[in-house]
Amino acid sequence: MATVHYIEYEDASPEVREVYDDIMTTRKVDWVNNFWKALAGQPELLQRTWYRVKEVMAPGAIDALTKEMLYVAVSVTNGCRYCINSHTAAARKKGMSDEMLSELMAVVGMANQTNALANGFQLEVDEAFHNGGRDSE
Amino acid sequence: MATVHYIEYEDASPEVREVYDDIMTTRKVDWVNNFWKALAGQPELLQRTWYRVKEVMAPGAIDALTKEMLYVAVSVTNGCRYCINSHTAAARKKGMSDEMLSELMAVVGMANQTNALANGFQLEVDEAFHNGGRDSE
Amino acid sequence: MATVHYIEYEDASPEVREVYDDIMTTRKVDWVNNFWKALAGQPELLQRTWYRVKEVMAPGAIDALTKEMLYVAVSVTNGCRYCINSHTAAARKKGMSDEMLSELMAVVGMANQTNALANGFQLEVDEAFHNGGRDSE
Amino acid sequence: MATVHYIEYEDASPEVREVYDDIMTTRKVDWVNNFWKALAGQPELLQRTWYRVKEVMAPGAIDALTKEMLYVAVSVTNGCRYCINSHTAAARKKGMSDEMLSELMAVVGMANQTNALANGFQLEVDEAFHNGGRDSE
Amino acid sequence: MATVHYIEYEDASPEVREVYDDIMTTRKVDWVNNFWKALAGQPELLQRTWYRVKEVMAPGAIDALTKEMLYVAVSVTNGCRYCINSHTAAARKKGMSDEMLSELMAVVGMANQTNALANGFQLEVDEAFHNGGRDSE
Amino acid sequence: MATVHYIEYEDASPEVREVYDDIMTTRKVDWVNNFWKALAGQPELLQRTWYRVKEVMAPGAIDALTKEMLYVAVSVTNGCRYCINSHTAAARKKGMSDEMLSELMAVVGMANQTNALANGFQLEVDEAFHNGGRDSE
Repeated sequence: MATVHYIEYEDASPEVREVYDDIMTTRKVDWVNNFWKALAGQPELLQRTWYRVKEVMAPGAIDALTKEMLYVAVSVTNGCRYCINSHTAAARKKGMSDEMLSELMAVVGMANQTNALANGFQLEVDEAFHNGGRDSE
Repeated sequence: MATVHYIEYEDASPEVREVYDDIMTTRKVDWVNNFWKALAGQPELLQRTWYRVKEVMAPGAIDALTKEMLYVAVSVTNGCRYCINSHTAAARKKGMSDEMLSELMAVVGMANQTNALANGFQLEVDEAFHNGGRDSE
Repeated sequence: MATVHYIEYEDASPEVREVYDDIMTTRKVDWVNNFWKALAGQPELLQRTWYRVKEVMAPGAIDALTKEMLYVAVSVTNGCRYCINSHTAAARKKGMSDEMLSELMAVVGMANQTNALANGFQLEVDEAFHNGGRDSE
Repeated sequence: MATVHYIEYEDASPEVREVYDDIMTTRKVDWVNNFWKALAGQPELLQRTWYRVKEVMAPGAIDALTKEMLYVAVSVTNGCRYCINSHTAAARKKGMSDEMLSELMAVVGMANQTNALANGFQLEVDEAFHNGGRDSE
Repeated sequence: MATVHYIEYEDASPEVREVYDDIMTTRKVDWVNNFWKALAGQPELLQRTWYRVKEVMAPGAIDALTKEMLYVAVSVTNGCRYCINSHTAAARKKGMSDEMLSELMAVVGMANQTNALANGFQLEVDEAFHNGGRDSE
Repeated sequence: MATVHYIEYEDASPEVREVYDDIMTTRKVDWVNNFWKALAGQPELLQRTWYRVKEVMAPGAIDALTKEMLYVAVSVTNGCRYCINSHTAAARKKGMSDEMLSELMAVVGMANQTNALANGFQLEVDEAFHNGGRDSE
């Protein structure tokens, strides 16, 4: 199915293996998923993407599970099959219950609906919402 | 700009005012934003949408602020101008700091990138991700 | 705002004016809208697009007003500001009432929601729906 | 494939069965498709979605078949595999011929093209199209 | 899988075979891919689409391979499975190396990310970028 | 309009100014556009995004102008107003003529159309296109 070859660990160069090792260590698994094996054909693409994902998804002002659920929300909206599966699995692993998944999906469904309505009616942005409420208390 | 007329409170029928009152009470504001005033042209559309949004966005297994941030993530991904502004404002009102907004945007940006890469490379879903990890512990 | 110059009728070549005339005759107006004036920079693009739109939107097994409403549905889903405005106006001109617009938007909103839910839950296509019911009676 | 378990009729609670019965009665079938069985994990999500879909899709100012074709147009534009199949099948069941399907697809294809062109050229909305022709006769 | 029947060469009318022959001659192949066989149910749709694609994709100010890579970029962004596969194959046939595919995907991934960030932050267009730099030297 | 404050050069920290300087040096300009000034609220987001964009857009197997046109194609498909303007301007600066812009838009328009048709008809991927022609000569 993939339009490029997966680079398996045993066939990988040292610089690619270094990234694979970091992925497995960070995620506490002993295997590398297809996404990274597809990017490995261009080591720079693999490195930049992995280290940035690792950085962005680390807990900060927003916790790790919430970040994972945000990732699911975007993947569902974009209809990316691989991503919906991998990130739903990742969110479950980080503590998302079935009840949380249902609520998440209900929010995402509703948001896609109201986005369409707002776009469709070409609404003017209310003054109180200007700049996303940037200067409000 | 809007393709329909906004129904102002003073011109609204009793059934529409009932919804407007509930919106203002729930949100602790004394005005109704354009989105609802545009839907009011069809009272049924206004009612169903408001009561469902109210239900879906109430705190549950997922808290209210996280739900609002999920809404922002979807709106950004769909590029809905009205929604990005109104929901960013709503999230700020519910406690989202500038730091949280930046982290949210970083996650949404990254997710849109990896969604494109995963789609582009037509990846097979790894076995461990089948069913979004539905049957895993 | 536009990234190219509009070619006004008075500045247009004979081959471009030929298309402009056909647009105005077909639509029973005495002016050419911005969309066509932007395409006119590349006469071939203007010709192919206009004659194909004219052909596709002519009444057939589906009537002209329904075709215009389908166009609105797609434009709303894609969030194209210019298109939402121009096609909502065109649909009104072809007989779409405010009530019909509201019903159309309700359907489009609902569809965007259930599309997200179906994608999000990664549903298998039921056997009865295979091939979009192509071989059913 | 699905990221949640389907709730089969025999395993469903009375409140879920009540919705299932209404779906089958309304659609004159003796089975429930996967979409509803996936939503049933959260009975409220199932109820709200079904009763709203039923309401929105009932014939009104716009007839039922046209509403179904609008649903197909949105599903195609969003690229939702499950939805394209289920709604194309539903539209066929409501009377859409192969000829109508071809015309619908031709319109949807054209609309996706001109949406991209209009967005790409960043066109100003002509005055006559302001507010989607809201105040025109 | 397809929602319509494929019209095979042996079952095709003379007008459809004429298009099929032109496709095979132009592409130097001895078979017709599914996309055209699905459109053939409506000969006019087949004709218009093929001749326009042939015209648009011919080398001009932009060469044929670059045009094919642009097609891949759009297909990836839209997540169209059929298109990603067929156009990646076509681009390879026209000279795209694995290295070029990786660079293309890196650009497309980055663009999808920065598009989301720009939309999300609701940026004002800088004066120097007005009209896409239309009037700059 | 923006949902965050722009960090102007004069108000920027040394680490942010370092990035600003690199942007202006690389692009041979004496000003920083809004996109970067919005990201600067989170210095890490600014750094990662700038250095990765710089890397991805540098000439490689694909030249710089082609990469810029790919960026326009994605931005148009996503309908990102800011991005369409900034990247169309950037492409013009790198040598894209009006004729090339028209051809690019014609390709992007066509691709959005055929993507919708292919998705809509739910086509099976022909064997010759499997894996995007990965293993073909």
